[in-house]
Amino acid sequence: MTADMEFTLTCPAPSRDHSRVLLAHGGGGRLMGQLISSVFMAGYGNPLLENRHDGAVLDVGGARLAFTTDSYVVQPLFFPGGDIGTLAVNGTVNDLAMCGARPLYLSAGFILEEGLEMETLRRVVESMRAAAEAAGVELVTGDTKVVDHGKGDGIFVNTAGIGVVETDLTIGPMSARPGDAVLVSGDIGRHGIAIMAQREGLEFETTIESDCAPVNHMVGDLLAAGIEVHCLRDLTRGGLASAVVEIAETAGLSIRLDESAIPVREDVRGACEILGFDPLYVANEGRFVAFVPEADAGRALVIMRGHADGAGTNRIGIVTDVGAGQVTLRTQIGVDRIIDLLSGEQLPRIC
Amino acid sequence: MTADMEFTLTCPAPSRDHSRVLLAHGGGGRLMGQLISSVFMAGYGNPLLENRHDGAVLDVGGARLAFTTDSYVVQPLFFPGGDIGTLAVNGTVNDLAMCGARPLYLSAGFILEEGLEMETLRRVVESMRAAAEAAGVELVTGDTKVVDHGKGDGIFVNTAGIGVVETDLTIGPMSARPGDAVLVSGDIGRHGIAIMAQREGLEFETTIESDCAPVNHMVGDLLAAGIEVHCLRDLTRGGLASAVVEIAETAGLSIRLDESAIPVREDVRGACEILGFDPLYVANEGRFVAFVPEADAGRALVIMRGHADGAGTNRIGIVTDVGAGQVTLRTQIGVDRIIDLLSGEQLPRIC
Repeated sequence: MTADMEFTLTCPAPSRDHSRVLLAHGGGGRLMGQLISSVFMAGYGNPLLENRHDGAVLDVGGARLAFTTDSYVVQPLFFPGGDIGTLAVNGTVNDLAMCGARPLYLSAGFILEEGLEMETLRRVVESMRAAAEAAGVELVTGDTKVVDHGKGDGIFVNTAGIGVVETDLTIGPMSARPGDAVLVSGDIGRHGIAIMAQREGLEFETTIESDCAPVNHMVGDLLAAGIEVHCLRDLTRGGLASAVVEIAETAGLSIRLDESAIPVREDVRGACEILGFDPLYVANEGRFVAFVPEADAGRALVIMRGHADGAGTNRIGIVTDVGAGQVTLRTQIGVDRIIDLLSGEQLPRIC
Repeated sequence: MTADMEFTLTCPAPSRDHSRVLLAHGGGGRLMGQLISSVFMAGYGNPLLENRHDGAVLDVGGARLAFTTDSYVVQPLFFPGGDIGTLAVNGTVNDLAMCGARPLYLSAGFILEEGLEMETLRRVVESMRAAAEAAGVELVTGDTKVVDHGKGDGIFVNTAGIGVVETDLTIGPMSARPGDAVLVSGDIGRHGIAIMAQREGLEFETTIESDCAPVNHMVGDLLAAGIEVHCLRDLTRGGLASAVVEIAETAGLSIRLDESAIPVREDVRGACEILGFDPLYVANEGRFVAFVPEADAGRALVIMRGHADGAGTNRIGIVTDVGAGQVTLRTQIGVDRIIDLLSGEQLPRIC
């Protein structure tokens, strides 16, 4: 492995100045949780928001719909395995899938910086078209704003999505139960490391590509097979650790993870060591955890492994009722380590 | 009227460099139309997008829904009569109303600049809460991203919205018919001038406040009364002129407007003269045009004038089949003037 070691970690210690927005407020960790609680929930608090799920499930005109949104500000715009366009489609498709919905329609809102090369925009639009086709969704409405040079950063994209919920299951943290098996849909950490390597000009023997992919077909197959899915969560900002901690806290249950069962590619592990990251906290864009009853775990594993993007699915833990809201990791040397949300920022602008 | 004349119009001549994004690509005029045609429609083209309406109308799980999105990048964030938060809620509520839908649910995606004062964010969140309450919609899902200082501009907000279409009418440019009366819901030009005056530090004897308001209740009353609404369009970027030209071009019909019937407040007219703007092209955020059959025009006027935000409703023109896609304005001195889309940018970042 070769690596240009001359890079700076954009990883400031959490500031004590709570009067201003920090990069870490967007990082998926403890500070983002505080921002959501103290500003957004305090302002808008309603039962739908309080579910703290990837999207809202709504009854509209007799239909049961999922509705979600995400803005994408990733830098660089293009990276191994994807770009801001693939991310913007797959991210929102996956949030809908995490609600147990079949994603149908997406909106796209662009904030362009004056002076952006039109060719760059065309490439992103083409990526979004191809990603929408792969996921089986349609981009049906959009908007474009342009801001002065120096007041944006090339392209920001927002997508919102609508899906239809065809299952009778209530999928979310509150449905997790003691005894549930925790499955992860493949190796973790690739997206964040792909971005970071590109940003810092690192070179490894192999190119680490983002895992960015739509997972809606995999989820659809689980539901179609009658798997009693309790909870789904994609492992974006904050990675596997943050997703599992949030679920444990919301459900008021504990989760035990087995480190040796969590798939991490050797090159990703090596890059994490060089960069000082813990793969548990590194963002993914095509990975999710599924909480299913013990009785369904074996069948769910087979279904997920049957998809190219789920071939690396593994069983990594179990839900327990010993303690509330705690996540423990049994390390490879047999020690139990408590897993918490990050208090600062690990990888700014990875999505 | 007093006015500080030392300001610069950010109004460059349209550049001939088509390889880069210009501010005018976001301005609601000819260049924005070209961007939409050549990049977005070419990339995503589907029948829903080709309607070129304020939102998409979709069949989802047996329900007829409208779905729309807009990003908001207005500067300054706070202005007389509103702020980026009221704009973000009302703008999307109004786009849904323009589809003939009853707005129900909104998403909110924030892109915050590192260093933003938390108090500023709180004020915007509170504005959005109050605006949602006034419009009768719920904010149900959201997202926050933070970008480095100098890579954003305080706050950008994206909202997407879902509404339910309960009318059997197909409301849009393609439903406009020769003989239709064109109604405007009140005086025009206030939003753009309020922003411009604030931005440039102009002072007038009276404060010109933005007309920013939700129009869904007014539209709901038109539909509930059985008015055969053919087309609705809110008069945002590009103003009344651009909205009417787009409708005429899409419908392949002509529209005759009567300048003396178009309401413009005296202070707005004066400010436009000083600033060198034509009120016909200045953005509004609580005004729309309604195309209704002659037989329903009188009743529609009464219903719209019955709302505080529609008290100034006036009949301003008629649809004809003489020529295709042309808009003419009979001026106050009796001359016919052809109205077209602006080719450049008039007021950047007014929404």
